Amino acid sequence: MKYSIQKIADYLNGTVTGNPHVEINNLAKIEEAQAGDISFLANPIYTPHIYTTKASAVIVKDDFNPEKELSTNLIRVKDPYEAFSKLLDFYANSYENKVGIETPSKISKTAHLGQNVYVGAFCYIGENVKIGNDVKIFPNTYIGDDTIIGDNSLIFANVSIYHDTRIGENVTIHSGSVIGADGFGFVPNNGSDFKKVPQIGQVIIEDFVEIGANASIDRATMGATVIRRGVKLDNFIQVAHNVEIGENTVIAALTGISGSTKIGKNCMVGGQVGMAGHLKIGNQVKIGAQSGISHHLKDGEIVVGTPALPIKNFKKSSIIFKNLEDLYRRIQRLEKELNELK
Amino acid sequence: MKYSIQKIADYLNGTVTGNPHVEINNLAKIEEAQAGDISFLANPIYTPHIYTTKASAVIVKDDFNPEKELSTNLIRVKDPYEAFSKLLDFYANSYENKVGIETPSKISKTAHLGQNVYVGAFCYIGENVKIGNDVKIFPNTYIGDDTIIGDNSLIFANVSIYHDTRIGENVTIHSGSVIGADGFGFVPNNGSDFKKVPQIGQVIIEDFVEIGANASIDRATMGATVIRRGVKLDNFIQVAHNVEIGENTVIAALTGISGSTKIGKNCMVGGQVGMAGHLKIGNQVKIGAQSGISHHLKDGEIVVGTPALPIKNFKKSSIIFKNLEDLYRRIQRLEKELNELK
Amino acid sequence: MKYSIQKIADYLNGTVTGNPHVEINNLAKIEEAQAGDISFLANPIYTPHIYTTKASAVIVKDDFNPEKELSTNLIRVKDPYEAFSKLLDFYANSYENKVGIETPSKISKTAHLGQNVYVGAFCYIGENVKIGNDVKIFPNTYIGDDTIIGDNSLIFANVSIYHDTRIGENVTIHSGSVIGADGFGFVPNNGSDFKKVPQIGQVIIEDFVEIGANASIDRATMGATVIRRGVKLDNFIQVAHNVEIGENTVIAALTGISGSTKIGKNCMVGGQVGMAGHLKIGNQVKIGAQSGISHHLKDGEIVVGTPALPIKNFKKSSIIFKNLEDLYRRIQRLEKELNELK
Repeated sequence: MKYSIQKIADYLNGTVTGNPHVEINNLAKIEEAQAGDISFLANPIYTPHIYTTKASAVIVKDDFNPEKELSTNLIRVKDPYEAFSKLLDFYANSYENKVGIETPSKISKTAHLGQNVYVGAFCYIGENVKIGNDVKIFPNTYIGDDTIIGDNSLIFANVSIYHDTRIGENVTIHSGSVIGADGFGFVPNNGSDFKKVPQIGQVIIEDFVEIGANASIDRATMGATVIRRGVKLDNFIQVAHNVEIGENTVIAALTGISGSTKIGKNCMVGGQVGMAGHLKIGNQVKIGAQSGISHHLKDGEIVVGTPALPIKNFKKSSIIFKNLEDLYRRIQRLEKELNELK
Repeated sequence: MKYSIQKIADYLNGTVTGNPHVEINNLAKIEEAQAGDISFLANPIYTPHIYTTKASAVIVKDDFNPEKELSTNLIRVKDPYEAFSKLLDFYANSYENKVGIETPSKISKTAHLGQNVYVGAFCYIGENVKIGNDVKIFPNTYIGDDTIIGDNSLIFANVSIYHDTRIGENVTIHSGSVIGADGFGFVPNNGSDFKKVPQIGQVIIEDFVEIGANASIDRATMGATVIRRGVKLDNFIQVAHNVEIGENTVIAALTGISGSTKIGKNCMVGGQVGMAGHLKIGNQVKIGAQSGISHHLKDGEIVVGTPALPIKNFKKSSIIFKNLEDLYRRIQRLEKELNELK
Repeated sequence: MKYSIQKIADYLNGTVTGNPHVEINNLAKIEEAQAGDISFLANPIYTPHIYTTKASAVIVKDDFNPEKELSTNLIRVKDPYEAFSKLLDFYANSYENKVGIETPSKISKTAHLGQNVYVGAFCYIGENVKIGNDVKIFPNTYIGDDTIIGDNSLIFANVSIYHDTRIGENVTIHSGSVIGADGFGFVPNNGSDFKKVPQIGQVIIEDFVEIGANASIDRATMGATVIRRGVKLDNFIQVAHNVEIGENTVIAALTGISGSTKIGKNCMVGGQVGMAGHLKIGNQVKIGAQSGISHHLKDGEIVVGTPALPIKNFKKSSIIFKNLEDLYRRIQRLEKELNELK
């Protein structure tokens, strides 16, 4: 992705001071930028950096008046922060602006594709699948029969979406994720081996959900596993059958949620957290990394640890745990002294 | 998957009371069912629900005699629970009843496929691979050279099975799982960097094993990593080189087992458990979620925690840990009072 | 992979005692070997096994003089350990010695492939991708636009490498791994929902790195996530945006490293460890399995636990934690006795 400074200035409605023909291929912070990078100056605290930056161009406010000579080129705009954000979005999307059906791909005759869709090579689109407008599906992705994907969603390479899944609009799913595999349900058979409980439910993913790489969201036994609007899941999230995650809840990597647990809205869950099954977690709950949750949590609770405690208790107890031996010795001494007194 | 009530009644050897033409597209619990769903009534406790259910049909015992008017339709059978189970199995299998070789797929000339096999598009079947009868391999799955898969096994999309792997009969492997990648073995080279230990062993998966999504079972350094008959592994299970997991052992998500550890039969292992290498875990052992196992465990032990303790000790100690500061204060007070006494 | 004993002896510059026509198809330890296996005898401690081994052949020192009759065949060489290592390497590489472009695969016209390359069927090679000499890419792998892969690297099946990634020479990446997915960055939007922070940085993987199965290395927000020369990552490693891992550091399975944390050289990190973001971990640091790291660590520190403690403290405190109830009781008794004294 290379563009001349002039071309970028045109895109941002800015004007160039310096050489408009220099080519830019990356964006960077002003203090870290190298030749070929473009950066920006919005906060006056960073002004000294503009005289030493190695960036090939810096976006500045239109009335910027350098106090020393500059070795970089300038693009002058009304709002440098907004202009840089616009450029970031442009750059981030530049690799995702794909359209068309690549070959070979396998699209069932009963599938329906919207307008302006991208289907990469080696994608498999099953029977009766419905794909909305402006959806982009990267190569080697599998979409099972009867699945529906809403407008504007973005599915990266090597994703597996099982049959009969519902995916909303503006959903992003990263590579390696698996949506709709069977829930983990077995019942003892003859005392020693197990019989599988059929997993015939669905996964429903609402609008504006983002799912990281290598995540797994299992289908429900009956009914649905539901990921509500605006939820953000990091890489390696395990969501078991019949779980429900409330709107705008954010969950960090390697966290596992056991079957039928319901999590409320706007929760923040750290990495490597484990939740037992059949729990009810309220809204605005915060759970520290590596916690083990085995009880219900009320709205607004902040917990950490295994088993999870209110954060205050956990911190105080952890400090004492660090030197538990000291406590042990002091008790031994007390016992000795008390015996001598008696 | 839509069927009329009549068609379902025929399949279950039942008789219809009500409208036989209504179409059913899902199965649900009687208290959660919606229009288009079929449910069942076996336990008399649930009888009141049949007068309020929104289900389009309910499977009941043949002599069921409603006390009030019903708004749902009935299918009368001998054993409603068994009939519903049969329907669940039918429904669960309905998306897996695929047969035939889809194109494009790549099947080596030296591979041998049994009868009634499904190979999805973009599957890769390497040299000398042997696939049994009634095996189903979903799209985009890779099967390396010399691998053998037994009758009736089911491999979902985007699975990677390395060369020279042995997979038994009636095995299920979900999407994203990797079977037979190299064990993690390196030896120090010049004090600072590492030389790889060649990993030339196998993975052997016996009959009736189920492996969840995005699991990894590494091949042995020499010999075999073995998953015995009837083992059930949830999503994201890490099985290192030369591990052996005994018959009918069940392991929940995100658990990792280090190299050469042997686990016995009929164990239950919670989620996010970690086991060190070279351990011997007995039969019927139960390990609580998030435990860290660094010692051998005998038959029937029940442990939890890091390091793992007998569950009684863990629970008692955890309760005290919660208010460790209280203990600390009481010791301080004792010391002060004792000093005053002296 | 079957070779006669004679053929193996020729490869190892050895001479055969016994039947040179017997076929060998596997390598094994002398005490575990079965018919069809070859083993070796280097350490005299194992000499008794040569009289009972079921191996079809054993590699021995050229002057080996058996004291009893042997039922196995011998290959006599100068250095049996070195010869067996050579055979192990040969065997380990035998399944990876693929060359050529299989069809169907999709290689963009602007991509450049080096000499002696293997590209498996259903691989996708994007625009402007550069692949070095002797690179092997197994089936169903996706390589996004503008990515560069150095000489002699080995990418297994079903790997996803996003656009604009830099992979060095002699790198190995196992199946299911995802390199370059978006970092997990969102900012609150209207108090309740979130806006995505564009993730426009790169992933840089230097030479001689090995990455296990189903790992995820996210691209940087800006700049690069960097995996330095010689790093070895096990399966299921989560590396967040802008992380840097120093040379020859080794990390075991299911460990997660949060955004912008920098790890030094030659560290050893156990499995299921979690590290908070923006930390600085020194060189030669050792971190025990399942630890939670929330503070910087200096060169050479050895820690374990959540929160992580020096290993000595952790061990002592854990022993006392095991019987925390005993401490509790002793304090109760002290309080009672002291009260009686007063």
